Amino acid sequence: MTDAPLLTPDFDVWPIGRRPTAVALTGTDVVVTWTDASTSRFDIWWLIDNSPMPEHINRATREATLDLSTLPDDFHATAATVEPSGALYVTWSHGIASSRYHPGWLAAHAYDGGGFVADDRPTPIAWGADTMAEPPSFDGSAILEDDTTLEAWLTAVAVYGFGRLRGVSTAPDTVNTVARHIGTVRETNFGRVFDVRSKVDPDSNAYTALELTPHVDLPTREYQPGLQILHCLENTAPGGEAVMVDGLRIARFLVEHEPETYRILTTERFTFQNRSKTSDYRWLSPVIVLDPTTNAPVEVRIAGFLRGPTDLPADRTGPAYRALRRIFALSRDPRFQIRYGYRPGDLVLFDNRRLMHGRAAFDPSAGSRWLQGIYLERDELHSRLRILRRNARARTAVATA
Amino acid sequence: MTDAPLLTPDFDVWPIGRRPTAVALTGTDVVVTWTDASTSRFDIWWLIDNSPMPEHINRATREATLDLSTLPDDFHATAATVEPSGALYVTWSHGIASSRYHPGWLAAHAYDGGGFVADDRPTPIAWGADTMAEPPSFDGSAILEDDTTLEAWLTAVAVYGFGRLRGVSTAPDTVNTVARHIGTVRETNFGRVFDVRSKVDPDSNAYTALELTPHVDLPTREYQPGLQILHCLENTAPGGEAVMVDGLRIARFLVEHEPETYRILTTERFTFQNRSKTSDYRWLSPVIVLDPTTNAPVEVRIAGFLRGPTDLPADRTGPAYRALRRIFALSRDPRFQIRYGYRPGDLVLFDNRRLMHGRAAFDPSAGSRWLQGIYLERDELHSRLRILRRNARARTAVATA
Repeated sequence: MTDAPLLTPDFDVWPIGRRPTAVALTGTDVVVTWTDASTSRFDIWWLIDNSPMPEHINRATREATLDLSTLPDDFHATAATVEPSGALYVTWSHGIASSRYHPGWLAAHAYDGGGFVADDRPTPIAWGADTMAEPPSFDGSAILEDDTTLEAWLTAVAVYGFGRLRGVSTAPDTVNTVARHIGTVRETNFGRVFDVRSKVDPDSNAYTALELTPHVDLPTREYQPGLQILHCLENTAPGGEAVMVDGLRIARFLVEHEPETYRILTTERFTFQNRSKTSDYRWLSPVIVLDPTTNAPVEVRIAGFLRGPTDLPADRTGPAYRALRRIFALSRDPRFQIRYGYRPGDLVLFDNRRLMHGRAAFDPSAGSRWLQGIYLERDELHSRLRILRRNARARTAVATA
Repeated sequence: MTDAPLLTPDFDVWPIGRRPTAVALTGTDVVVTWTDASTSRFDIWWLIDNSPMPEHINRATREATLDLSTLPDDFHATAATVEPSGALYVTWSHGIASSRYHPGWLAAHAYDGGGFVADDRPTPIAWGADTMAEPPSFDGSAILEDDTTLEAWLTAVAVYGFGRLRGVSTAPDTVNTVARHIGTVRETNFGRVFDVRSKVDPDSNAYTALELTPHVDLPTREYQPGLQILHCLENTAPGGEAVMVDGLRIARFLVEHEPETYRILTTERFTFQNRSKTSDYRWLSPVIVLDPTTNAPVEVRIAGFLRGPTDLPADRTGPAYRALRRIFALSRDPRFQIRYGYRPGDLVLFDNRRLMHGRAAFDPSAGSRWLQGIYLERDELHSRLRILRRNARARTAVATA
């Protein structure tokens, strides 16, 4: 029995620290006592749902094959023991095959009294000009090989909403290579990699030399791209300074100082709409989007030049525009902005649903300015961070084995 | 003056029907009286925001260049007249260039008393086995040329959540061609086009011959793909029948009959997580997601085999699993299901955030079964429908000119 393999319901690595010493069945809970004398409850449905056994999951994919809805309401644990290896062994009613839980996995996922937090994303820190002078910056010269820098850079983006690599290759399409190193790219009607420079027949103000007021990209979509990369290949044109604004900070400012403006911006639905001969994307949304579960601001949707006609009731149209103009003004307020120039080889990854970005006008006749851009989803960043941490755990496990 | 070009702030076509006959300034409104004697208020901020003039928008991109936040609070209209062409002509304070509004555009966007609805998406109709026997089906043999069928098919998807083309070419990669005919494709870690067949070393239960209980794809992402296409190239294997369930219908059933289950499924955050050696995608969400503005169900997030450990408080874990098992059971209830076989040349487009799809197990040793799949966002469908309608308006305008 003690030689039974310790399976987990994933492809992850779970070093064994604290382990079960005793177990009891109480109602619908399996109650585990740990080596540090603390206890954790595990609901039987939670346990069977996370069983790693070949009778319950497909070991090739590690995805569940047991259909919970086929189990009767009185399904229950018939016995639970701790094996010498520290594994928790549970036998089930109704002829369901027994489950053995890896002690490292179990301790890491003890949701009751064990500190397990399923949402493992870093906590964002809102910033303004008072707390941030320039983008968190990293040496990007070996970003494709250097996982330590990669993890630090991606973590900065998760926390502050942006991070800059310097010294990245200026070869065209490098932005795609770096994006692919993080995860899957999100293509749009502007293509996969888009070239930000002054064009003869532009299909967006981005492709002119005009000033761009702080905005998010593609607010016209149900799902604004979560992440954007801008990579500077050439920049000798006067002007074109980048501007970044933390939408989270502005939202918090409004909650505190201008609650009526906040109320309007979190409830009135503005129209976001692109202008094109070949597409017509629209989405209606408040400017500040709240998490429906927590009511906390999670997203801004703002653009001076990608909105369409609203259809708010006549009496609410004036107040809505007053609130919109107010957040425009705040996004142009130096207290909330940082500004920086782009050097060739600079590559900035930023959260396109949290930060607003803009640029000063530039003079395309006096020099060249060429950025390449690409979009990804935030999922890709968090998945990559988890895999980096998993690899680190695996190295630790090998080192201590 | 009457020969001035009638510009619009878009690339659209607005046939002139009802037109302004008189105009008055009242407070911050420009009040238009129409040929049918009705009136509409237009807020001055709304009007300047939608001005089509070259001083206010970039005529090349039709995107705004006027920054509303640079206008003073006491910005106002100094005069408004109706020109012989029916255009509304407004002069502004503070040296802002005058605006002329196309009467067709203005009537189509009269948000006060004019019937303009900014959210022009078709209204969904929820269905069950009592009202739907098989997918709304269309002849797909000429889908790349036949815009009438394209519009009917896409409209069915917007209304019912799915639509089937029959007689589509069975050439591999046709699913990509059809998707591109709608809009931009969403690539994932499974690639651009994914092959659904029984594989030797599967990285998802989808790529086995196992039964798949009703689910959405990629619930592990912050943004579940909005649309999915499945296209049948070969199907001689016994079994593998498709199942479709309308999540909207189940949500409405729960609201009415099981409010406590509905409450739990709309508030408790379950963990959705993939299993992979190279990625670790997670998202925490209620199973039924409500629109934060309207509180109406807009999305289901459900999968028997793509969930990870929850971290709900111990006392709420049991009830959460009870509710989860209940919606699993409902999704397997024939009252909510339709079932159909795939014939080679069948191509089904469906809303992956509204419908759950599944399949019966099949026998890969007794025949072949090969589907190709691809994802898009719902934005692409609605944009395509708008362009089809725009083209129809343009044809009407030419025919009546």
